[in-house]
Order: sequence, then C-alpha cells, then structure tokens
Amino acid sequence: MTAQDTITRADTIKMDGADPIAHLRDRFALPEGDIYLDGNSLGALPHGVMERLEVAVKDEWGNGLIRSWNDADWYPAPQRAGTAIARILGADDDEVIVCDSISVNLFKLLVGALRMRKDRKIIVSEIGNFPTDVYINQEVADIMGCELRCVMPEEVESAIDDAGIDLALVQLTHVHYKSGRIYDMAGITKLAQDLGALVIWDLAHSAGCLPVQLNACNADFAVGCGYKYLNGGPGAPAFVFVARRHFDAMNQPLRGWHGHAEPFAFTQDYKPHPTIDQMLTGTASQLATLALEKAMEVFADVDMTVLRQKNMALGDLFIALVEQELDGMGFGLASPRDAERRGSQVSLTHENGYAIMQAVIARGVVGDFRAPDILRFGFAAPYVRYVDIWDAVAHLREVMETGEWRRPEFNEKRAVT
Amino acid sequence: MTAQDTITRADTIKMDGADPIAHLRDRFALPEGDIYLDGNSLGALPHGVMERLEVAVKDEWGNGLIRSWNDADWYPAPQRAGTAIARILGADDDEVIVCDSISVNLFKLLVGALRMRKDRKIIVSEIGNFPTDVYINQEVADIMGCELRCVMPEEVESAIDDAGIDLALVQLTHVHYKSGRIYDMAGITKLAQDLGALVIWDLAHSAGCLPVQLNACNADFAVGCGYKYLNGGPGAPAFVFVARRHFDAMNQPLRGWHGHAEPFAFTQDYKPHPTIDQMLTGTASQLATLALEKAMEVFADVDMTVLRQKNMALGDLFIALVEQELDGMGFGLASPRDAERRGSQVSLTHENGYAIMQAVIARGVVGDFRAPDILRFGFAAPYVRYVDIWDAVAHLREVMETGEWRRPEFNEKRAVT
Repeated sequence: MTAQDTITRADTIKMDGADPIAHLRDRFALPEGDIYLDGNSLGALPHGVMERLEVAVKDEWGNGLIRSWNDADWYPAPQRAGTAIARILGADDDEVIVCDSISVNLFKLLVGALRMRKDRKIIVSEIGNFPTDVYINQEVADIMGCELRCVMPEEVESAIDDAGIDLALVQLTHVHYKSGRIYDMAGITKLAQDLGALVIWDLAHSAGCLPVQLNACNADFAVGCGYKYLNGGPGAPAFVFVARRHFDAMNQPLRGWHGHAEPFAFTQDYKPHPTIDQMLTGTASQLATLALEKAMEVFADVDMTVLRQKNMALGDLFIALVEQELDGMGFGLASPRDAERRGSQVSLTHENGYAIMQAVIARGVVGDFRAPDILRFGFAAPYVRYVDIWDAVAHLREVMETGEWRRPEFNEKRAVT
Repeated sequence: MTAQDTITRADTIKMDGADPIAHLRDRFALPEGDIYLDGNSLGALPHGVMERLEVAVKDEWGNGLIRSWNDADWYPAPQRAGTAIARILGADDDEVIVCDSISVNLFKLLVGALRMRKDRKIIVSEIGNFPTDVYINQEVADIMGCELRCVMPEEVESAIDDAGIDLALVQLTHVHYKSGRIYDMAGITKLAQDLGALVIWDLAHSAGCLPVQLNACNADFAVGCGYKYLNGGPGAPAFVFVARRHFDAMNQPLRGWHGHAEPFAFTQDYKPHPTIDQMLTGTASQLATLALEKAMEVFADVDMTVLRQKNMALGDLFIALVEQELDGMGFGLASPRDAERRGSQVSLTHENGYAIMQAVIARGVVGDFRAPDILRFGFAAPYVRYVDIWDAVAHLREVMETGEWRRPEFNEKRAVT
C-alpha cells in the first residue's frame, strides 16, 4: 500500500507473490488473456480432465464397451466422486454420492425427510432462495399436504420458532446465489433440530470455496453442485449428502434400479440399498461423472481454510478497489461487507448492470448478470489472482468512463445471462 | 444355403455382401477381433463423438467457459438432440427432449398424466416390466393414491377392459428387456384411449432399432434411453416425448428452473414453459448431451424400415444357427420366434447361463446375462454383420463342447452382470 492507503497494481502483484496457494492456478487450462470471475457459475477446466475423457471414450467405451462397467470400475464412480467431495465438506467418505441434478436430489430429500416427520406440516425456507429450490419446495409441499413458509432471511429464525413442534423441515441455501450471504449452518441446524425438525442445506455456492463442516454442524441432509467451484464441467452432476444416522429411515421417492439393494437381481419389489447408494435412481452419465471425479483431484491436497482465507481476501480487495476506482458511478454493494458473512463472490448493483456486464465480458473480464440489476463476480481461489482483481476493476472503470456499455450490442438480451 | 439347408459360414458372408446398410458399420470405432452383441445394453462408439467432445472440452469449456452457453449454443442442446431422436420415432421435431434418466422422466410423466385424470385411480402395467418402471409406478401410485395393477403380458388387454372408466393410465415397455417381445403400440393405445385413459410407453429397447411411429399410433407420452441403440455413451441422458396436444395440460412435478417459461427471470413462482422444454428440470450435463447429439448423426440418412429388416434377419439367422449348432445342449428360446413380434435381440435360457456368458465374453463374443437364466444377444443392425452371428454361435458351441464354461473364473459373480 502507498502512504495514502491507495491500492496500486504493484501491491496486488506483491499479494500474488505471497499467496500460499498460487501454484493451484497451474492445475487449470485457462484462456489466454481473460480474467475469469465466474467460477461460481461454471468452474474452469482442470488439466487432466480431457485426458481422462479420452481414456473413458476411446479405451473404456470404444474398446471395453459393456465390460467397462466392471473392468474400468465405472459402476462405483458415483461413490468415488462422492468420497472426494465428502472430504472437503466435513462429511464421512460414505455419506456423499454424485448423481442427477440439484433439483432432482432436492426432490428426493424433501419427500424422504417429510416421510420421517409425518405428523408435522410446516416447511420453512427463504424468499429469494434459488428459484429451483423454491419451485421444488412448493411442489413437494403440495404433494405431501404441507405448508411452505418462505420468509425474509432475517426472519428465518423466528419462523422456525413460530412453527414450533409443527416444523417438519427447514430448507435453505447456505450461500445465497445473488448476494453471497452465508447462513449460520450450525446455529440454524441446532435451532430446527431442538424442535425435532430436519434441515436440508443447498451447498451450490459453498462446496469448493468454504470449509463446510457438515458433521461438525450435525447436518441432516445436503445437496450441491458439481459444475461451479468443483470444476466438474458444464452441467456436471450434482451431489447429495445424507448423515449416516438417517440411512435407515430415509425413503426417497425416485426409486430407480441403481438405488436398489440388489440392482442386478432385477426383482419387482423395491428394497432400498442400506448405504448412501439408496439415493441413486437411474444410470448416471459416466462421461460426466468421470470428468467430475477427475476434476476433484484439484482439491486432494488443499487446505480449505487456506483457500477460504484467499477468497475472503480477494473479495475484500475487490470491494476496496470498487470504492477506490468506481466511486460515484452508480454501483452499490449487494453482498455483505464482512468477508466472514460472505461466500466466494461479491455482487454489485447497477441500474445498467446487464449492459455493463456484457461490455466487460467483451473485454475478457467474465462475470455474470442476475436479474434485475446484479453484477456477480466470483473469486475461485484456486485460479483467480490478486492482480486479476485490479485489472477487472480497471476494465469496469474504463467501460464506465468511456460509456462503452451504451453500445447497442451490449444491450441485446441473450438466451443465457 | 447347401442342399441340406445347412447354413454355412460362407452363406453368411454372402448375406453381408448383399446387405444394403453394411456401410453403416464404418461409422463406428469397434474393438478389433470382438463380436459385440450387447448394443441393447451399451451402444458402440460412433466415430466423431471423441472429436466433438474434444471441441466441447478444450474450446467450449476451457476457452469459452460460461460464454459457451450462448456462443457454442449449449443451451438448446437438449432440444437439438431431442429433434434428432424425434425423427426416428415418428414424432414431430418439437415433441422430444433429452434430459435426466428414464426413471426420472417416467416419474415426471406418471405424476403429470395422473394429474390429467384426477378422477381415475387405476394404473395398469406388466409383471416383469423393467424393475425401475415397476418401482416408479408403485411409488407414484402410492403418492397419488392410485392402485397399480401389474398383470401378465397376455392379460394387459383384459386388465384395461376390467378397469373401465376407472383406468387412468397404462404404462408399458414397448420391447421387453429380457425377452424382446413387442407390444402392439397402436392397439393398446387405442384400447386405453377409448376408455379415456392415457398411455406411457418406455422405448428403452425400441428407439434406434424399430420404426416406432409415435404419432401414427396417437401415442400420448414416452420415455427412452440414449445409451443403448442410440449409441450416446455409457449412462447417456434419456429422452422424453409428450404429444403436442398435451403440452398445455401437462404439469410435471420435478419443477426445475430449466423447465420454467423464463428461466433467467429468476422468479419465485413456477410457470411451466409452454413447449416440450417444460419437461426439463436442472442443468443437463453438456458433455453427455453433446455426445448423444453427435451420436445421432449415425441415423441421419438411415431408413428405419431397412434397418429393421436387417435386425429381424440377424435374429432369425441366430435362432436358426442355435438350432443347427447347439441342439441338445440345454438352450431354450426366451424370445418370440416370429421376428415381427421381437425387438432387436434374441434371448436364450440355460441353467448355466451366467458362466456360459462369461466364457463367451472371454472369447470376445459380448452379450449379457439377466437373472435368473437369460443369455441376451442384441443385434444392433448398424454394426453387426451376418458373419458375426455365425462366429458367435460357433464360439458358443466350442464353449459347450469343451466344457470351458465350468472354469472357476467364469462362475464368480461380478458387480455388474
């Protein structure tokens, strides 16, 4: 820092020099010249994934064909990928499995958990939760004859209290997809469990960026995403966590043959597998599962508390630079200022947010936009550098100063924002 | 044929010479020396799929990153792959979409269809239907307060009659996974519809081997498999068909954001997309979907009636050779002898079926085993030759004559049969 506490580009280069996990960046194939701040939406490509897919396609599928379910160990791939994920979530190796999408897994958990609390009728969730979570919550509430109470984030604890012994379930997204705000997992879990209820956490924006401690928090259930901070590839399969103490009581409704105790007995009566395998439904895409399994090697030797320190520092730097460089340009802060209360992203508001985001993307600074006015910038600590934050804010400044964002091409809506 | 009507290997080579679709075999990367008769379980690798995945991984994911949802047209991949499949199923281009697994899609259709027939309480299905179908049928019947009546195949029509105006749904697998027996799609559909009911067909063993005529049969709904005769790769995503006349009334329960009318508005209220897109739930694996889309190019110029003639002829040849070469060795025929009533596979029974199958697989003749005593041989017409049938039966004969199947290693159970 200079005497005036102004942050310079040279300062950020120094920060990179002192970064204990700077070497992780070499594990990714990143596009030349871009600054990628959207790992919270689609993680970057880890080296080795393409090679793994070549073996999977040419040797295992092409030559091994059906034999590869045994000979290439395809069959236990969902369990292996699950174990790799369990290790960065504070879960036991056999409590996580990879399958389906978050939406589908959430449906399984919601129905299964409500069946464990048959005499209770209230589900508490958040207004502003990720849309899929709300849609699935509402649908399951209707099917199961329950009441879904969506409340403002600051009202969650009192809504739990109000529900009392009628509370069946709490379903929350740990880190909010727009703001990055973090819920107190341990506190809310205890509050709900003290009333005899269960809690389902959506870890879409937590897994791979926070040292989640599922078992230390006594968590019941969780789902999460393979394609964000876990870098499993576009639309990678999701994961699902069930605390071992619930294996026997869980009775999930998407009963497919892969969740059966003896899938290859081909019996007509469903008997759920006694382990986490009971959460499986149909046959999983091997290409997708093996890519995610390979991508998880990035985390094999990473201390998640060190990684977390870095993404908090990256976020703090971003906020400081936005205030230093973009003052008076109409940006607001939509994320908690306190890094401890924020995931690995910082969201800004701006009335021209959509066009501004398109303009910086055209310059190779890739974040994303969430309606109505949110510019999201994600700081995947394994590959984002401190100097990238400096350069990103410099581009934002230029886009604003030049009025570049007003160009018609940046104001055209695209299929995917 | 010789004077005694004995079929010789030379005869089968002549049949290959006269095969109008023999050239399709060049579209696949097949393992040297093997005879692959398990395309009904996992289709072979089409040339071009590996190259498509390389572009998808290195260029689109690695370099394009999140931008590829727009720039590489990832977003409409489920629709494009669906259109390619629709064209070989006698459906309109916009009535089929690729997503999730058969089990998950069946759940969507069953609940959705029952909601269209709220006053009716009976579902008719088959004893011996593929296990996943039975499990999901039973689960949905329980959730929706309906009665599932599973009957023997020959009793399906009378069970439909018996249910009368209480009949809500019929759910059948068009071609049976073990025997290959084909249901009369047009006849059963009409029978059920005449009572005001709906029908859901599972096309797992039909798509890519029969000239399915969904709209000519006035079909309501169907699901099917991407990894068998469509050659989409291990665990490839499934497809789902909804007749356009049902788009408005369908109300499927796995409400994810990709099925929303405006996914990127991120609203809290679910509004189903007015098209086939409403069947989507979460984000699909792009790698899996793009591989299936590429694989479908195999069928782009194929006349399905010509392909069907060939797989019927391959099956007839197999049965004739089994009778000629394996007489008195304990094999029984578990498939219809009449090719018109049989899908693209022939199943044999044998009390030592498991070990015999392992022994021929060790010789490179790859079929599969289904408990308790079924040896399945699938004849994927795009890449199976007539001479392969001769050679496969010759290996079976040698395995029996030498007693090779008695070896301990062929009698050990493996994870996946």
